[in-house]
Amino acid sequence: MNYKLKTRSEWVDEYHQGVRYGLQGKLILEESSPFQKITIYDSKRYGKALLLDDCWMTAEKSEKCYHECLIHPALCCSTQIDNILIIGGGDGGSARECLRYKEVKSIDLVEIDLRVIELSQKYLPTIGGNAWSDSRLNLQIKNGIDWVKHRKENSYDVIIIDGADPIGPSKELFSNSFLKDCRRILKHGGVLATQSESPESFQQIHINIVKTLREIFDYADPMYGSVSIYPSGLWSWTFASMEKPKYMHPRKSRIEEISENCQIWSERWQQGAFNAIPAFIERELAKT
Amino acid sequence: MNYKLKTRSEWVDEYHQGVRYGLQGKLILEESSPFQKITIYDSKRYGKALLLDDCWMTAEKSEKCYHECLIHPALCCSTQIDNILIIGGGDGGSARECLRYKEVKSIDLVEIDLRVIELSQKYLPTIGGNAWSDSRLNLQIKNGIDWVKHRKENSYDVIIIDGADPIGPSKELFSNSFLKDCRRILKHGGVLATQSESPESFQQIHINIVKTLREIFDYADPMYGSVSIYPSGLWSWTFASMEKPKYMHPRKSRIEEISENCQIWSERWQQGAFNAIPAFIERELAKT
Repeated sequence: MNYKLKTRSEWVDEYHQGVRYGLQGKLILEESSPFQKITIYDSKRYGKALLLDDCWMTAEKSEKCYHECLIHPALCCSTQIDNILIIGGGDGGSARECLRYKEVKSIDLVEIDLRVIELSQKYLPTIGGNAWSDSRLNLQIKNGIDWVKHRKENSYDVIIIDGADPIGPSKELFSNSFLKDCRRILKHGGVLATQSESPESFQQIHINIVKTLREIFDYADPMYGSVSIYPSGLWSWTFASMEKPKYMHPRKSRIEEISENCQIWSERWQQGAFNAIPAFIERELAKT
Repeated sequence: MNYKLKTRSEWVDEYHQGVRYGLQGKLILEESSPFQKITIYDSKRYGKALLLDDCWMTAEKSEKCYHECLIHPALCCSTQIDNILIIGGGDGGSARECLRYKEVKSIDLVEIDLRVIELSQKYLPTIGGNAWSDSRLNLQIKNGIDWVKHRKENSYDVIIIDGADPIGPSKELFSNSFLKDCRRILKHGGVLATQSESPESFQQIHINIVKTLREIFDYADPMYGSVSIYPSGLWSWTFASMEKPKYMHPRKSRIEEISENCQIWSERWQQGAFNAIPAFIERELAKT
């Protein structure tokens, strides 16, 4: 993979495998944290946007198509949703979607890079919304790998892995040992959710994530949707559980609690998105 | 809408609403036909590609995610598939997918621009494949609007509308009078299929197409998928029928005939793609 970013006149582009995706706008800030390069950009099409290491991460007017898809299949379907763990997610969007459920009692948000949180709070405040001031949110500026290693068994009802591509600081979030720790600290009727890359632009990585989760958990399935600012626009999230494919069966009361304010997600959309697996990926996953 | 294309060093970009999508490669040819600007470009990522009026239309290694989705829900589900009409589709990809069914006896391919066919045959031969030499294919270099106006009732089992965006030469392919003619010349158990733009980048146009088809036909439903080279990457196709939602029920024998060589389409994928309607579009379509 070859990532680089060029700022030319009023465009910022993400480059990937001979393809570039650019947004017109104005650069607001660029700095290097101890972990990565962070860019804040004001785009005409999607409002203020965040880039990490020159890759589009999120934008004010485009983030729902990512966050709703990562969060609601897990939170609508898990047996209980009292205690949530989010690894990454420093922009606050995942926490905001979780906090829409009254049943949620506490969220540990473990983000390695304090500057991502600080800059998101300052420049992209609508993405975190009220989450930042919600007393149920417990911020931990720590390494997520260490965090899960030191939790007790059955600590969480839901685990959300909201990291970047598996290069740079997010690499270990796709490793066997990390995901085994996740299984250990997840309660039996719980659901794990992770972004799982594009089946088009990162085909092998996508396949590997799903296969690894199927090895470690009893059930795991990918779900497909659209994130225009990510490579290829076709994106995936993978859900895992131990009891049965928990993530396939949203609960009526929770659907009613959130549906009205969803842009993309609905019970019907979710059912479709699990089935809309491209034939070539279904064949790859069937190989042992 | 503001479309323009810039060739800078070795990139060609399509510009749309403050977003640009570019492919790295080499310009092969650029000319103006009586109808539009035609560009042939050799891209690193997707092989040789065709642009019309500076918009990406198709590319050798990316075309299946468009053509399979337009063709197979119609051809797997229509009562009969003896006689097919394709309006547009000068790259040959739609004809190629139709001709994979042995039941198909004849295809009228009505393309307004001879140069699109000639340049596709020369530079993108894999997209048309064997279709160009298949005796069942009947090429008509004519205006599709006139063509449907002068056909008799019940002329076709399936009608495929494979045009560009509803500006320029394809504009009339989304008009009431054209679609009414399509209904008139379609047999009762038949299916009409049309590309129906991006619900993200062309939201209002997309809604209008679906609503117009619902007015003219008894049943019409949009289906969603991914075409990376089109604006936003999220694309749609809409299917219409008179008997019942015909396009929802693929026939076993036809599924078996084509599945093995499909990249994207499968019976399961199709079922998912009809359900994967974003919540905000479902709400818009429910408004009268």
